[in-house]
Amino acid sequence: MTRTVPFLARMQDDERAAWMEALPAALAAAGLADVAVHPLDRLDTDARQAARVAIVANPEPADLLELPNLVWVQSLWAGVERLLSELPPSALQIVRMTDPQMAETMAEAVLAWTLYLHRDMPRYRAQQRARVWHELPLRLPSQRRIGLLGLGTLGRAAARRLIANGFAVAGWSRTPADVAGVDCHHGPSGLVAVLERADIAVALLPLTAETRGLLDKTRMALLPRGAAVINFARGPILDTDALRDLLDSGHLSHAVLDVFEHEPLPADDPLWAHPQITVLPHISAPTTPQTAAKIAADNLAAFFATGAIPQAVDRARGY
Amino acid sequence: MTRTVPFLARMQDDERAAWMEALPAALAAAGLADVAVHPLDRLDTDARQAARVAIVANPEPADLLELPNLVWVQSLWAGVERLLSELPPSALQIVRMTDPQMAETMAEAVLAWTLYLHRDMPRYRAQQRARVWHELPLRLPSQRRIGLLGLGTLGRAAARRLIANGFAVAGWSRTPADVAGVDCHHGPSGLVAVLERADIAVALLPLTAETRGLLDKTRMALLPRGAAVINFARGPILDTDALRDLLDSGHLSHAVLDVFEHEPLPADDPLWAHPQITVLPHISAPTTPQTAAKIAADNLAAFFATGAIPQAVDRARGY
Ligand SMILES: NC(=O)c1ccc[n+]([C@@H]2O[C@H](COP(=O)([O-])OP(=O)(O)OC[C@H]3O[C@@H](n4cnc5c(N)ncnc54)[C@H](OP(=O)(O)O)[C@@H]3O)[C@@H](O)[C@H]2O)c1
Ligand SMILES: NC(=O)c1ccc[n+]([C@@H]2O[C@H](COP(=O)([O-])OP(=O)(O)OC[C@H]3O[C@@H](n4cnc5c(N)ncnc54)[C@H](OP(=O)(O)O)[C@@H]3O)[C@@H](O)[C@H]2O)c1
Repeated sequence: MTRTVPFLARMQDDERAAWMEALPAALAAAGLADVAVHPLDRLDTDARQAARVAIVANPEPADLLELPNLVWVQSLWAGVERLLSELPPSALQIVRMTDPQMAETMAEAVLAWTLYLHRDMPRYRAQQRARVWHELPLRLPSQRRIGLLGLGTLGRAAARRLIANGFAVAGWSRTPADVAGVDCHHGPSGLVAVLERADIAVALLPLTAETRGLLDKTRMALLPRGAAVINFARGPILDTDALRDLLDSGHLSHAVLDVFEHEPLPADDPLWAHPQITVLPHISAPTTPQTAAKIAADNLAAFFATGAIPQAVDRARGY
Repeated sequence: MTRTVPFLARMQDDERAAWMEALPAALAAAGLADVAVHPLDRLDTDARQAARVAIVANPEPADLLELPNLVWVQSLWAGVERLLSELPPSALQIVRMTDPQMAETMAEAVLAWTLYLHRDMPRYRAQQRARVWHELPLRLPSQRRIGLLGLGTLGRAAARRLIANGFAVAGWSRTPADVAGVDCHHGPSGLVAVLERADIAVALLPLTAETRGLLDKTRMALLPRGAAVINFARGPILDTDALRDLLDSGHLSHAVLDVFEHEPLPADDPLWAHPQITVLPHISAPTTPQTAAKIAADNLAAFFATGAIPQAVDRARGY
């Protein structure tokens, strides 16, 4: 008997094709050669009734209601805030992707765009356009303080990478943390301490009721004059109108935004054209199909063999 | 008696001011509080006759002829090719700056602009300008091969940094080298081996009779299709007309140029406006006055105390 696992994903076609190659291969390697992965619209009523687990990637939450006997879903993405906030309360368990490879890719992105700001690439780019030959003052990385907002899987990997490359790193979390080489703070007062001294603030937080709108005008104004902001977490964590005001007034120097309230960012959004904003199309840490498919397949194999469900997110806490 | 050390430097005013603060402080710290550093035009004939050592930074070579009793010069820069090629043969010893801090700054620059290319920043910038939301395929750093041309003080520091951040690194030198984690090649045939497999080629070579024009059309065409080039060494090492042809034909994808045949790059140079060329104003690894002034001052103190001259460049070899 072929078992069917529904696949509910919203992604670019080339990305979908990569998963449709990686998932069957990983399932076969995990001893699940008899398991087929099919999009929801290819499943008949029986298959929808039979499904106890699904693989999802940024799905439309309502679509999950078409699978009445789901016990858990394996997300291929690390952020699952829409499922948490839009699904009606139920026993459905949501397992997000935590792939060491993704954490390394995010750490690389944090380092890459930190160096982009640290080595003044946006200003040198503007000088090139104006054909201006002018050396800007150089700071050592030890003189550049990076404030990491979020010290989870991604924040810790980013901290290690920044420290290895000489930067001074402070970090902020909800509960007290102890991370080697990081000046750790937590809770509301800890946020003030981190922002007040950060030359570059990097958001690596989940989107929850508490973090929505966190980086508002008052909090971003705590950053020292000339500071920059990187948002690699979720759009609604940062107020982009406030950001533009602080850039236009000269308080902040630059922002790198990879995530937005509405994605794709609408073509008429003023963020696209702001000279001090670097817009990225949610690319800081894509899941790598090869490694993540193996993690998902191993989780499914354990479930089919023993009924074990991997550690799920805490729906009350919101992440 | 005040001893006077001539200072022959061509640099931006703010840079000069930084040196004029750092050098006296470093000399005093090295026990040379009685030594004064003065620009050439502030020295009378006696002082010019008395000078046995001078501090230089990219000087006009002919100016050194005004100091007839010079035994050696301490360059604040790492590259001294103009002195080597334009000074008439003499016993004058040329000591270039080798500052571990500068090597780290260069390693940081190599990493920063390697990540700039590796994470597709130029293409994402072009997409932003066109308001295009599109994810480009991501490669792991282990799948990206960096070819370092030059494995000296700077090349080795760059190799360490790239390897620590996951890149595959090959290197090329004149004589055989053995650098941990680097696929080392040397001599003319070694260059072909490195270029044929480099996704990003980084020039960190001194300018000599042998390296002038090294990266010509034939050699750059050895790079795989889609490869990129970084020149952090000296402008004349790379043929920019050939580079533009290879970019325009689509063989190469991008170039980062920090050094040029004529600096500042003339305002009418077509390199400024090429969409696939990033122009930097010779900023990849400026000397840090604090650390380099100490190295220069310690060298001067040893010379005044014992007559010892630091290891000088090999004028016959050209570096
Ligand atoms: N742009 C992209 O491509 C991309 C890719 C992957 C992930 N992401 C985003 O990155 C987020 C973080 O991922 P992760 O794997 O690092 O998550 P994680 O392991 O769950 O860590 C979350 C961190 O945020 C902290 N946090 C949560 N709520 C907080 C609050 N109210 N105040 C202070 N700190 C709070 C947590 O504090 P505690 O340590 O006290 O729990 C923890 O340190 C994801 O949720 C996702 O939205 C983006
Ligand atoms: N853009 C900037 O801001 C900046 C800053 C500092 C320096 N630089 C430039 O960087 C250059 C390199 O500095 P460095 O301190 O690393 O010099 P270095 O220690 O003398 O090393 C030079 C390297 O180049 C190799 N090399 C020389 N001639 C060669 C040839 N004909 N074929 C193959 N390899 C050759 C040497 O080979 P062997 O090992 O066999 O001798 C050595 O590995 C400087 O000369 C300067 O022009 C630029």
